[in-house]
Amino acid sequence: MAESYRYQQLESWLREGIVQRRWRAGDKLPSVRELCSTKQLSKATVQHAYQRLEAQGLIKAVPKSGYFVAASPSKRDSAPLHRKALNGQALRPVPVNTSAVVDDIMRRGAAFDLLPDLQGPDADSGLLALNRAVGRALRQHRQAAHHYYDAPEGNELLREQLALRYQRLGVAISSADLLVTQGCQHGLFLALMACCEPGDVVAVESPGFYGSLQLLSQLKLQVLEIPADPANGIDVNILEEQLARWPVKACVVTPNFATPTGAVMPAASRVALVELANRYDFALIEDDIYGDLGFRERPEPLKALDTQERIMLCSSLSKSLSRDLRLGWVEGARWRERIAHLKLITVLASSQYTQQGVADFIREGEYERFLRRQRLQLLTQRDQWAQAISEVWQDDVSYTLPEGGMALWVSLPESVDTLTAYNRALAEGIVITPGALFSTTTRFNNYLRISFAQPLSTKRHYALASLAAILRD
Amino acid sequence: MAESYRYQQLESWLREGIVQRRWRAGDKLPSVRELCSTKQLSKATVQHAYQRLEAQGLIKAVPKSGYFVAASPSKRDSAPLHRKALNGQALRPVPVNTSAVVDDIMRRGAAFDLLPDLQGPDADSGLLALNRAVGRALRQHRQAAHHYYDAPEGNELLREQLALRYQRLGVAISSADLLVTQGCQHGLFLALMACCEPGDVVAVESPGFYGSLQLLSQLKLQVLEIPADPANGIDVNILEEQLARWPVKACVVTPNFATPTGAVMPAASRVALVELANRYDFALIEDDIYGDLGFRERPEPLKALDTQERIMLCSSLSKSLSRDLRLGWVEGARWRERIAHLKLITVLASSQYTQQGVADFIREGEYERFLRRQRLQLLTQRDQWAQAISEVWQDDVSYTLPEGGMALWVSLPESVDTLTAYNRALAEGIVITPGALFSTTTRFNNYLRISFAQPLSTKRHYALASLAAILRD
Repeated sequence: MAESYRYQQLESWLREGIVQRRWRAGDKLPSVRELCSTKQLSKATVQHAYQRLEAQGLIKAVPKSGYFVAASPSKRDSAPLHRKALNGQALRPVPVNTSAVVDDIMRRGAAFDLLPDLQGPDADSGLLALNRAVGRALRQHRQAAHHYYDAPEGNELLREQLALRYQRLGVAISSADLLVTQGCQHGLFLALMACCEPGDVVAVESPGFYGSLQLLSQLKLQVLEIPADPANGIDVNILEEQLARWPVKACVVTPNFATPTGAVMPAASRVALVELANRYDFALIEDDIYGDLGFRERPEPLKALDTQERIMLCSSLSKSLSRDLRLGWVEGARWRERIAHLKLITVLASSQYTQQGVADFIREGEYERFLRRQRLQLLTQRDQWAQAISEVWQDDVSYTLPEGGMALWVSLPESVDTLTAYNRALAEGIVITPGALFSTTTRFNNYLRISFAQPLSTKRHYALASLAAILRD
Repeated sequence: MAESYRYQQLESWLREGIVQRRWRAGDKLPSVRELCSTKQLSKATVQHAYQRLEAQGLIKAVPKSGYFVAASPSKRDSAPLHRKALNGQALRPVPVNTSAVVDDIMRRGAAFDLLPDLQGPDADSGLLALNRAVGRALRQHRQAAHHYYDAPEGNELLREQLALRYQRLGVAISSADLLVTQGCQHGLFLALMACCEPGDVVAVESPGFYGSLQLLSQLKLQVLEIPADPANGIDVNILEEQLARWPVKACVVTPNFATPTGAVMPAASRVALVELANRYDFALIEDDIYGDLGFRERPEPLKALDTQERIMLCSSLSKSLSRDLRLGWVEGARWRERIAHLKLITVLASSQYTQQGVADFIREGEYERFLRRQRLQLLTQRDQWAQAISEVWQDDVSYTLPEGGMALWVSLPESVDTLTAYNRALAEGIVITPGALFSTTTRFNNYLRISFAQPLSTKRHYALASLAAILRD
């Protein structure tokens, strides 16, 4: 491994030790001198690793004493807030009944555009390059290949390119462990089906992705909603309390730019979450679909902390590149054989020429170039939309500006019911994503997820104003 | 409707009357004169319709008396043969445990080639035209389309082309009722999931498609194997007996060129099957994947007899055109809403440009031209393989020559166990499809399905001889 990556190796090793409770909260970590000697590293490398862990809140430097493992995320930080929001209601696993509105929104392919009928002008030259790359793969596609199904794992070249991208983030994922899917939703489906049986309890973020709730409903799994907020994501303290009470089999979590809150989980919460999964022996299903859409940095996936093959990493190119490729992937951890079997019997295989084209697109650096432009554009659009939302609702609205992803989680006065406004908005051609979709409870009935994936054109600006009028009625 | 189709309308109307038991076995049908008058048709049209029904064995002409409904398929025709094969074992629904060998074969994408590593030379110019059509669709694909998911039903133009092909066969399927899937297996998965709950009993052909058995296993459904043979397909008399005993929820059936037997169900059996489904209120899931591969004619799908929206027609282009397109479809009958929902939450959507390219390929007549060459080639290859098989095994082998599809169902002496030979063959690079895969019983352990999808090259001929030697060991 290159010199420049040595601090990363050390950082991972130290973090693993904390996750595996080799060092617990308050324990002193090895001295810099000790590590220089045992690991054959320079002082600068060791210090760099320690400084990074300190910046992540995982350890604390005590002058003249050395480095110590920080306490777990403070119980006072988040729990009382969420307890208030729960209004004293106890958490319990429940069967899921999802709303017909979710189907309607998904059918309209419209969860990320207030005015999906507009289908704006062609935007980025990267997409033209993508079309060319897939077209070229198709021309080079041997006719004989039409006679054979692709292996369930998918195209080797694409999997190598995807694995390389993770390796550059410092996450040791091998192409052999990746399986290509029809998108992230398909990956979540395979992952849940692989590790759960009907009736099992699955913990999710609340509010959290409606697609996961629908899958739980279909697979007859019970949902345990764990409060999440824009600052910290899922509340690991509340999760810990609930784990003592319920036999949780899996936890679906979006550590990077979660939808709808936009949260990026702090490092300490990540470590605590993985430690809980190890202690209570449940599967972590990581939805990393927004990971590549960090405006200032690309956070590591949670998978980086996996020492027991229990984190299934699901992602796709649907949000960061194209919804029409139908290409995603899952790193299936200890369930990889079962996931390959499930892919075989449910969809058999993926299209080889599409995978080949996308592999070329990534290899040639086009995807990275596209992402750079895309992140800048999303950041600009985030601020445009946020300003417009503030102008339209004035003091009635609150939201947190996310550092990635493509949506704002907008809170309106408690008297507003965004779900009942759905059909009235639709009558004016406006498709909204009401807060009620993100939970089986009524706690988010006065919320809206508003996407900034599209430019704030005059028409969309006007639609926003119309929407405010509808919600005021 | 055009003049030339009037007899088809009358034929359908008469057949429906028989399916719905308006006229029962032995009943006299309306006279030619009566129909001319009430239906405003010419004598030639009425006679043409009656002659076609007579040729199908559904009615009998009695000189000077008129036309009468024929008796149901004779109990003596098929049942005793199957009863002997069952060795007196009673049929009963059982949970399914599928073999790891199935996974291995499917993973190798190899169920239709003894030597999959060969991946022979490029064959048909039609596949080049297909690559061009999809490439053209891709170039015309608007970049903005990358921002939106396709509707779950799929591309409107493709669904229209598919519906048109059925309409030309006289089957009234509307594009609005078709939903595009990732292939036929995906369609079967959605159909089974839509109409069954875990524990339900599903009747299947025995021997029958291993992919269906795997789905039943995954969905925790119980399988009731109904004997099937190359001459008649599924034995409707035995099915009828079993229906009185077990609460069958669905029946998966391949009326046209079933795999592995190659059977085309006779018209009278089809009518009896649909009548049973209506009487016992179960869903029929029709796998029509080989329908387009009839060497001399393209038989109607069973769906043509559906008067109660209970036949879900599943098919794809994987066998007749390309396994790599990952395009199939399902006509979901009364379950169509549920199927659309299931597609949404499991894979979300299909790729628009692929669908567009294939729609163009069909519309321009390329698919029909390709099929004509393909059928001729398969017929030639069928005879080459059959001759080689006879030469290699001599008196030890028996099979029936199918009139379509791409496989021979080969019976070897009872002492032969093809499943145990799987690994020995694999060691020589030969992938076989043992009879045991097509049932949960051991009744077909001395059978092999041998595909004639590939030309009988010298290497494949040699592999066949090696295989015979391995099986003799």
